[in-house]
Amino acid sequence: MVPHLVTAQSGPLLDLEKKILEATPAIERWFRMSWQEHTPPFYCSVDLRNAGYKLAPVDTNLFPGSFNNLATEMLPLSVQAAMAAIDKYCPDARNLLLIPEMNHPNPDYLAHVSRLMQIFRQTGLHVRLGSLSPEITQPTPLALPDGNMLVVEPLVRSANGRRLGLADFDPCTILLNNDLSSGIPAILENIHEQSLLPPVHAGWALRRKSNHFDAYDEVAKKFGKLIDVDPWMVNPLHARCGEVDFEAANGLECLSDNVTMLLAKIKKKYKEYGMKEMKPFVIVKPDAGTHGRGIITIRDANELKDLSQKQRDKLAVMKNGVAVHDVIIQEGVPTVETVNGAVAEPVVYMIDRYVVGGFYRVHAERGIDQNLNAPGSKHVPLAFAQQHAVPDLKAKPGTAAPNRFYVYGVVARLALLAASLEMERTDPNPEVY
Amino acid sequence: MVPHLVTAQSGPLLDLEKKILEATPAIERWFRMSWQEHTPPFYCSVDLRNAGYKLAPVDTNLFPGSFNNLATEMLPLSVQAAMAAIDKYCPDARNLLLIPEMNHPNPDYLAHVSRLMQIFRQTGLHVRLGSLSPEITQPTPLALPDGNMLVVEPLVRSANGRRLGLADFDPCTILLNNDLSSGIPAILENIHEQSLLPPVHAGWALRRKSNHFDAYDEVAKKFGKLIDVDPWMVNPLHARCGEVDFEAANGLECLSDNVTMLLAKIKKKYKEYGMKEMKPFVIVKPDAGTHGRGIITIRDANELKDLSQKQRDKLAVMKNGVAVHDVIIQEGVPTVETVNGAVAEPVVYMIDRYVVGGFYRVHAERGIDQNLNAPGSKHVPLAFAQQHAVPDLKAKPGTAAPNRFYVYGVVARLALLAASLEMERTDPNPEVY
Repeated sequence: MVPHLVTAQSGPLLDLEKKILEATPAIERWFRMSWQEHTPPFYCSVDLRNAGYKLAPVDTNLFPGSFNNLATEMLPLSVQAAMAAIDKYCPDARNLLLIPEMNHPNPDYLAHVSRLMQIFRQTGLHVRLGSLSPEITQPTPLALPDGNMLVVEPLVRSANGRRLGLADFDPCTILLNNDLSSGIPAILENIHEQSLLPPVHAGWALRRKSNHFDAYDEVAKKFGKLIDVDPWMVNPLHARCGEVDFEAANGLECLSDNVTMLLAKIKKKYKEYGMKEMKPFVIVKPDAGTHGRGIITIRDANELKDLSQKQRDKLAVMKNGVAVHDVIIQEGVPTVETVNGAVAEPVVYMIDRYVVGGFYRVHAERGIDQNLNAPGSKHVPLAFAQQHAVPDLKAKPGTAAPNRFYVYGVVARLALLAASLEMERTDPNPEVY
Repeated sequence: MVPHLVTAQSGPLLDLEKKILEATPAIERWFRMSWQEHTPPFYCSVDLRNAGYKLAPVDTNLFPGSFNNLATEMLPLSVQAAMAAIDKYCPDARNLLLIPEMNHPNPDYLAHVSRLMQIFRQTGLHVRLGSLSPEITQPTPLALPDGNMLVVEPLVRSANGRRLGLADFDPCTILLNNDLSSGIPAILENIHEQSLLPPVHAGWALRRKSNHFDAYDEVAKKFGKLIDVDPWMVNPLHARCGEVDFEAANGLECLSDNVTMLLAKIKKKYKEYGMKEMKPFVIVKPDAGTHGRGIITIRDANELKDLSQKQRDKLAVMKNGVAVHDVIIQEGVPTVETVNGAVAEPVVYMIDRYVVGGFYRVHAERGIDQNLNAPGSKHVPLAFAQQHAVPDLKAKPGTAAPNRFYVYGVVARLALLAASLEMERTDPNPEVY
């Protein structure tokens, strides 16, 4: 029942993990109470880094991909959680419209879309695919690696303009799996009668990582108080700079100052915990972006002066050619985890408030201080069978799985809660009660 | 991914099953809408009989045992469903008090209690055991087969008499796993501040099987209309007799008349479906009882006249020596399922509205027309991995599991819905809105 990947981290539980395990009932109750007041995102994946001395989320994805990399045995967990989510938004739903990214579909992404469709079909919904791409003007078949076919169809607004659907397909729920990094298409605007999930302000056209980590600061602080640990144990320090222009080398002072400040803060923390041999580093990345583009590791602010033109170019533009102006600087959290000798980081998946699975992102050519979400990374499913939920502290040692991954699920849910606060606070049209 | 038990029923899908599979989205939507209006029992297990020509619940247990016989791989499904249930009743819960049957605890029942405790601990609750037995006057350890220990403690009413708990343990939720067939103990009366689940009128002191099957008649009728099948396909015909005294041979006329009437109705149905070779039979059982006591198979009302004294004695008294007066007569549904040559019937488990697993009850010494819930029965877990939820109709044949067991989950949930109607209608203190 213990996943073979437990070998990646089979030492004695770290202090943080022990504290989390011991506080399980308090933690679960706190989450239950929190979800009474805040609505979790429809779905979410969180990249974690386990440094041994700290365990922290480094990226919270509100348009999760790679559902096909979750262990298939655990699929029923996703289906059950999706049932709960559908119950909440649209109990009378017949149809779900999924809007994936279809600009450059690769077989792996198509397999992910197919898995998502399977999950929602298994909740008992009719599921069809709509495309934001103007090139899709009629139902277009796409072959899956396993021989099945997906069909993507053009989106259609209803005659009165109030609803979005496909020809002959009027969905109650519209699920975005497209991060809108190229902007919010007009066809998605002013949808009020249907549940558009996540909302458009979760897309990178509007979303900023720094807002997320501001909300996460708060969540981590409360959590630290709850279980009596330094919130830093679960929180990567961060700062942001707007108005950065890498090409023209404008705004680099802000960046340089913040890098220096952050490195000093981390050094202080290292000193506090007696980790004198550790060398701090920060990660610089676009405040509005994903897919591992434009991300660099910096150990000294001087490195910013010495960036080559190639590095500048890389930093200046992210996915879909959108220029980078807002930058987040995040405490670098090294990963102590390896799978078969390659550096690894856990990625945890959630639907509604439930942890439904996860995998290790593994990169054989990257170091422990580098971003792993980059070409060449592989996914190794975690058998979350015994781990997804909560450990069984009362069981005699050896009679229950060690539940190491429970802790991952807790920290991932801290990020989930932060995302719900973030979405509330950045909502351009907040509901007033 | 296909459970090995699929061999028990690996022929082509029966007509009913086909209809259910094809109507999946309509069925799931109907359940979602139904749960908007009715509250499912906290937990429930349903005994099904698959006759090939019909698939019907024959017993709906609101104090399910044998959770230890569910596949352990599927435990996370139970935990997730339990989380959803706790969310609903007691989001601010810290403690759950479980009241098991502790009169004659056998190792198998203790293993079941231990599994239930594990599930609720894994939702993040402190779980302790309280006993209704007056013999338990102090915390009493009980050894589990695996070497772990359970501790049962005496129940305590709070100083003001308003709450039920243990010494130093004030639960928000009190979960009964005791069917109250000996009556409702005073200590369980007038609990208004805590969630007592299921409510005391779910116990056999008050509950009647005939009320359940009256409610089931309605549910089956609606379901039949929804998917356009004869409700008889999912519904065993039934009748009831009160005031029966087997010892004194009083009230046997009512029984005889109803047996004759029911056998005639079944015969008519057999004729309607061209099953001339089939010989109808009925099952006579206590209207308020469980554990397979006092159950007989009757093929002709004349058999009732010829009951031996031994048979009368057997019928007259059920568990805990309670005399039988109310009797339910139920259409006998033969089972076409076998596991390793032994007669088998599926048992489906639910927590809140979710199917969380199941097993085959197998009895090597019983016939296809007999009650299998009897000494000598064995449990073979169903790997509900791909089956628990909803089939994937869009998958190319051979790329997804055949999902035969989805149909079992649907019919079990019909019984679950009937149980919620039954509980509403038989509530001695109904809430008025």
